[in-house]
Amino acid sequence: MMVFPHKHLLGIERLAPEDLTTILDLGDRFGEIAARPIKKVPTLRGKTVINLFLEPSTRTRTSFEIAAKRLSADAVNISGASSSTVKGETLLDTAQNIDAMSPDIVVLRHAQAGAAALLATRIRASVVNAGDGAHEHPTQALLDCATIRAHKGKIAGLRVAICGDITHSRVARSDVFALAKLGAHVQLAGPRTLLPAGAAELGATVHDRIEPALEGADVVIMLRIQKERFGAPLFPNTREYSRYFGLNERRLALCQPDAIVMHPGPINRGVEIDPAVADGSRAVILEQVARGVSIRMAILYLLGGGEAGAE
Amino acid sequence: MMVFPHKHLLGIERLAPEDLTTILDLGDRFGEIAARPIKKVPTLRGKTVINLFLEPSTRTRTSFEIAAKRLSADAVNISGASSSTVKGETLLDTAQNIDAMSPDIVVLRHAQAGAAALLATRIRASVVNAGDGAHEHPTQALLDCATIRAHKGKIAGLRVAICGDITHSRVARSDVFALAKLGAHVQLAGPRTLLPAGAAELGATVHDRIEPALEGADVVIMLRIQKERFGAPLFPNTREYSRYFGLNERRLALCQPDAIVMHPGPINRGVEIDPAVADGSRAVILEQVARGVSIRMAILYLLGGGEAGAE
Amino acid sequence: MMVFPHKHLLGIERLAPEDLTTILDLGDRFGEIAARPIKKVPTLRGKTVINLFLEPSTRTRTSFEIAAKRLSADAVNISGASSSTVKGETLLDTAQNIDAMSPDIVVLRHAQAGAAALLATRIRASVVNAGDGAHEHPTQALLDCATIRAHKGKIAGLRVAICGDITHSRVARSDVFALAKLGAHVQLAGPRTLLPAGAAELGATVHDRIEPALEGADVVIMLRIQKERFGAPLFPNTREYSRYFGLNERRLALCQPDAIVMHPGPINRGVEIDPAVADGSRAVILEQVARGVSIRMAILYLLGGGEAGAE
Repeated sequence: MMVFPHKHLLGIERLAPEDLTTILDLGDRFGEIAARPIKKVPTLRGKTVINLFLEPSTRTRTSFEIAAKRLSADAVNISGASSSTVKGETLLDTAQNIDAMSPDIVVLRHAQAGAAALLATRIRASVVNAGDGAHEHPTQALLDCATIRAHKGKIAGLRVAICGDITHSRVARSDVFALAKLGAHVQLAGPRTLLPAGAAELGATVHDRIEPALEGADVVIMLRIQKERFGAPLFPNTREYSRYFGLNERRLALCQPDAIVMHPGPINRGVEIDPAVADGSRAVILEQVARGVSIRMAILYLLGGGEAGAE
Repeated sequence: MMVFPHKHLLGIERLAPEDLTTILDLGDRFGEIAARPIKKVPTLRGKTVINLFLEPSTRTRTSFEIAAKRLSADAVNISGASSSTVKGETLLDTAQNIDAMSPDIVVLRHAQAGAAALLATRIRASVVNAGDGAHEHPTQALLDCATIRAHKGKIAGLRVAICGDITHSRVARSDVFALAKLGAHVQLAGPRTLLPAGAAELGATVHDRIEPALEGADVVIMLRIQKERFGAPLFPNTREYSRYFGLNERRLALCQPDAIVMHPGPINRGVEIDPAVADGSRAVILEQVARGVSIRMAILYLLGGGEAGAE
Repeated sequence: MMVFPHKHLLGIERLAPEDLTTILDLGDRFGEIAARPIKKVPTLRGKTVINLFLEPSTRTRTSFEIAAKRLSADAVNISGASSSTVKGETLLDTAQNIDAMSPDIVVLRHAQAGAAALLATRIRASVVNAGDGAHEHPTQALLDCATIRAHKGKIAGLRVAICGDITHSRVARSDVFALAKLGAHVQLAGPRTLLPAGAAELGATVHDRIEPALEGADVVIMLRIQKERFGAPLFPNTREYSRYFGLNERRLALCQPDAIVMHPGPINRGVEIDPAVADGSRAVILEQVARGVSIRMAILYLLGGGEAGAE
């Protein structure tokens, strides 16, 4: 019997290590479903999952939608562009209205940190944070952990480098929380202006050069650089960024010989990661995407009250 | 056995009181489904419902989509932005093309009065009017009646105040038709420039101040003020509107002690309704939304030829 | 037992006549389903169909979505506007990410010729070309053939006129390939500037006036004129186009008395086709749309590995 003592998935920060393990184990079981000729189980039949994406994200929305449908839930998409939020309605009004339609789970992507947690205090449905500003992106961290565990057989004791714009990255935050809870040694690297002030308190070692972070790493997670941020005062330009912080084959040689390379996508080839590395044998970037579906199935299953064994 | 002798739901104006009662009764039955762990019945399996929303509306579209899915119909959304109507195709061409794909029901939201009725003359599918210009919004009126009946046990004999921009409101028109047919005494109130010329013929009493309409009311329906209309010659400004026609606690005290407060949403807090009232104990605004799903299930069921008893 | 020895449907050009016949025969069988009270078969349950429309098209997307749902597949829509391609991601990155989510079929609409074929070399899912630039639109040609065969009982030996902007029309290209393979005599007609250089090599006779193409025709296919192209150097203006190449009743009289008139839609009434003809008894334009759904069901069935007989 699965035990998951939470109504919502708002972030990794407050979860216990055993919560993470429960999700990862269940994700592995759901991963097998994607390989079947009939990729569908009836566990969430009659449940309603609303994907409320008030910030655009094709991949994450598609991943949650496929996850919901493979569990036989009814999935309903609401995107920012077509939403009444355009008419000046607040997030809470929108959410309470949606909640009145009796969904079981609301998956929220929102530009502001704390949006998912706020929602959870006001609605009856379970809330899944699909990314809230620069705060957390817990399903990304879980699929990252699932990918690492599948390749390395464990997470405890691994050396994991996370490189890029740490300050603005909800992926980095959630990854650090998850990896630290599961016993990895996390190395953060980025330009000094893009390292958060209290980074060390996250339970990670901080470097303002990429090389010491990569040294002996079992896993490298390259963050996406938001090109729209370049030009801002604290940002280096693209070429300079790539020169000092891009992952190329020479730098990859600093890692363990069997190190894996990860990226939350979409990739800026030639900026944060060299095409040869992105498309090379060490990259497991598409496997992350694949595990995203099964991790999201696990989350929806645990929050949606699916019957254990019903699959 | 349910009897509903109509192929389409184009408006309330032409329906008989017993048609309204049929829908309300069935809506109550479907309302129970939303409380079940498995919120789905197989009654419309194999039926196709197309949500053709050529004017944006997240709530209404979502409500119809959830209603269709809970009846096991296949729901397909077509929105204005992505539609071929962009290429200059007329509504009728669009509709006939959609009709050729053999949908059972087309739910139409359109900016022009009469659009749903026009459609119904040209296609084989049943048409549900989900709002056509300033003409009618019949499912809103039905969910309003369902909410009133649930709270008051009846509609006949109640005093119902509808306040705001009566001229431009399809909600007001449909509400007046439905409430009058079911025996309520309807009081309309709004600025003189926003009261339609022939309002009295609708079967309602008309006031150009809000207070006499509220006096002794069992139910208050506050209309949404379309902020985009302010600035137009016949419109007061927001502050003035709120001062003379906004519903606050002082004005609410003019009503019956157990009066309920309704609003079709989304609310402009502080304009047509004071936050203390909107979020107070007399407001049943979210219940309206909840009943919207079950009323729409009832409509889709009646028009889609679902088998009675199959739920 | 159906034999369809292809993993993808990228175009008509490389298909054998018997492939076309297999699809047309199966389409006829699925066409009967649209007439049933329950328009749904379980053949693709547990399969995932992704409609990746990176160029807008309400009709074709809707047709594929309905086809997928009537086969009980899970259909997921991704449109250009909301896609990560906005963030500068390439088509291949997008496609590989989608592919990692284990869809069975990706239906691609794309502005560039060759996009579907490129995709097919890089992903594991089956690819259906739903229109790629000015290259091919194979399901349109198949539904055209299905409509012709239903009316004429055969395709071999028929005289088929295709009129309009041949150069820019993927519909014309796919139609010529399909009709020629099935033994029709194809006549192409258009302004000299809109006839492709190597048109004769397509297996068709080319005319720079419409009359000789219509002479004795059993079938007339009028192409849509893209109004946005008018004003370009090689384009006549709308009035002139209509005068020399529009299909009116006088010109229709040049065809066989039982000739049928087709158009891929949406129609520009009064430009390429006169309203009297478009809405007249010889037009089978809406039947084309209806057959579009069943032809697409046939394609999805053949590529999705549905069990024969399972319907």
